[in-house]
Amino acid sequence: MIAILITILVLELRVPHGTDWQAVRPLIPVFLTYVLSFIFLGIYWNNHHHMLHATTRISGSILWANLHLLFWLSLIPFVTGWMGENSFAPLPVAVYGVVLLLAAVAWLILQTAILAHEGPESKLRMAVRRDFKGKFSIAAYAVAIPLAFVDRRIAIGLYIFVALLWLVPDRRIESQLNRKESSGL
Amino acid sequence: MIAILITILVLELRVPHGTDWQAVRPLIPVFLTYVLSFIFLGIYWNNHHHMLHATTRISGSILWANLHLLFWLSLIPFVTGWMGENSFAPLPVAVYGVVLLLAAVAWLILQTAILAHEGPESKLRMAVRRDFKGKFSIAAYAVAIPLAFVDRRIAIGLYIFVALLWLVPDRRIESQLNRKESSGL
Amino acid sequence: MIAILITILVLELRVPHGTDWQAVRPLIPVFLTYVLSFIFLGIYWNNHHHMLHATTRISGSILWANLHLLFWLSLIPFVTGWMGENSFAPLPVAVYGVVLLLAAVAWLILQTAILAHEGPESKLRMAVRRDFKGKFSIAAYAVAIPLAFVDRRIAIGLYIFVALLWLVPDRRIESQLNRKESSGL
Amino acid sequence: MIAILITILVLELRVPHGTDWQAVRPLIPVFLTYVLSFIFLGIYWNNHHHMLHATTRISGSILWANLHLLFWLSLIPFVTGWMGENSFAPLPVAVYGVVLLLAAVAWLILQTAILAHEGPESKLRMAVRRDFKGKFSIAAYAVAIPLAFVDRRIAIGLYIFVALLWLVPDRRIESQLNRKESSGL
Repeated sequence: MIAILITILVLELRVPHGTDWQAVRPLIPVFLTYVLSFIFLGIYWNNHHHMLHATTRISGSILWANLHLLFWLSLIPFVTGWMGENSFAPLPVAVYGVVLLLAAVAWLILQTAILAHEGPESKLRMAVRRDFKGKFSIAAYAVAIPLAFVDRRIAIGLYIFVALLWLVPDRRIESQLNRKESSGL
Repeated sequence: MIAILITILVLELRVPHGTDWQAVRPLIPVFLTYVLSFIFLGIYWNNHHHMLHATTRISGSILWANLHLLFWLSLIPFVTGWMGENSFAPLPVAVYGVVLLLAAVAWLILQTAILAHEGPESKLRMAVRRDFKGKFSIAAYAVAIPLAFVDRRIAIGLYIFVALLWLVPDRRIESQLNRKESSGL
Repeated sequence: MIAILITILVLELRVPHGTDWQAVRPLIPVFLTYVLSFIFLGIYWNNHHHMLHATTRISGSILWANLHLLFWLSLIPFVTGWMGENSFAPLPVAVYGVVLLLAAVAWLILQTAILAHEGPESKLRMAVRRDFKGKFSIAAYAVAIPLAFVDRRIAIGLYIFVALLWLVPDRRIESQLNRKESSGL
Repeated sequence: MIAILITILVLELRVPHGTDWQAVRPLIPVFLTYVLSFIFLGIYWNNHHHMLHATTRISGSILWANLHLLFWLSLIPFVTGWMGENSFAPLPVAVYGVVLLLAAVAWLILQTAILAHEGPESKLRMAVRRDFKGKFSIAAYAVAIPLAFVDRRIAIGLYIFVALLWLVPDRRIESQLNRKESSGL
């Protein structure tokens, strides 16, 4: 389903009416937001794929934790369009951060629900023992949201920093589970 | 396909043109409807996933019963948009209930078609023996639809009540089939 | 992919701006077209699912014949919107028939490509030996298209007749292959 | 995910408001662009399907190379709409070429990342030994982009030529891997 959300992102890129460089210029912030959201959803797609691949048992609470994560991710195309079309005005930038923050919290909840279901010596549990990146991201978003009203560039800078941090895929899980996987792309 | 419908829901959230709190206020009913429909489709997604997982044989009538269910579910993004954009006016609220009612009836038909195909001692048959929630939901919708024209808050309250009732996943099926499942998220 | 097309159909149902019966009335032809197209795409979805399930070998030409079928099917949401929003004007009704005709021809080509690849005693070959419905549909569309300019009701009547003819799933294939299938819904 | 992008393409075909031939005429360039982009995405879909089927091991860098390819492909519906709605004006034609060029480069990167992961005697490595078509396409796009500002017909002609070149599916990979495949359509 994250793949569908990534694809729906592009619908927020409205076709411009003119055909000269003038017509393209207002698209630049929209395009940059598109790239940022594409990377965020791509990170979730890859890590979600890794984590579920390493999950051996599914329960009702995992299904709902997963749906809860998808809820916040599903708002990303919406906040992307809002932030991009308004050239990074403070409120949309802050709301964008709120959605990222709640998606990160939902990810932690999903991870906890899955770990609670796996045995204490599960590979997954070993792999995510110290979830530094997850906790740091939540802190960074929490700092960025109020700062969007002070200087939106700081907030956007923090979002980009978190994205870069995650661009390296979750090697901890990957290194442990790599061999088990087939071409689930 | 229910996953795609959930994703398409977000397209009904139109990006506001302003960037202050004023511009956001008319979005509140749209957003609340979005949350409600997301939960309803999420419930169907989870339970549909459970039920089909427990189904051992597919027939032509099951395929059509499934398509019939998908038909009513496919209208949910449409009625969600209509109800949300008109701040819960009586007619959209009633039509929303009609779609939920017919989806619930279609679910019963699909369940019956699958059970008729399974043997009399199938696990699924045991699991859904007394389908209290299914029948109660249909009754609740049938009551809510005319009440939407009296006081829409009663109708919406009933919809929310049914959603909460189902938020607990169908433990009957789950408890019987839990171990068989792999990561079909 | 046909599942995605079915879902995209609903995006052609534009949310009305009013909330009374007046606002709903112009939606009736749109809704009826939606139902008709949903049934057509549902028929293709089910039969496509059956046929590919019975296919044992894939070649380059089958991939392209499949993509060719998907091309015509992908135009159905577009012609559905055009026909519905213009209350069944002659030209959109005729173009709707042209798309259905070319999709039916593409289906025949795909079926032929698959059969050429299967052995002469394949089950699938036995199952579709006399493809009466396929050929009749093509003839019916070819008759309906010019008649749309004489009396559009005749054309629409023929489309509905073909849909009803196919609503009975392709029992020939199904009866032969039924037992092999798992829950590919 | 490429299947979803193909489907989203059709959303760029806006329903015309009139119902006579006059209303249809401005749609012709839009429709032709639709056909061209459908073929390009179809080529990527088929070849992507073939290549990943032949891939035995997935790594983090392959996941990101894949996402990078999907990024450029995801822009195709957008540039398709822009080029079609402006009757092939020079700038949209050039930008269309840029997206095709970057998608082709991303394809090469993905192919290289996969080959680096496969052993030196892998079937895939044998199959794509001399990637003439991939390199020729990149050169053709690089030539077409500046020529779009001289005479857009040359640029469009080159795009069509590359599409025709690829319409023959990648027989090299296919011939080696054909037998392994099941019905992943």
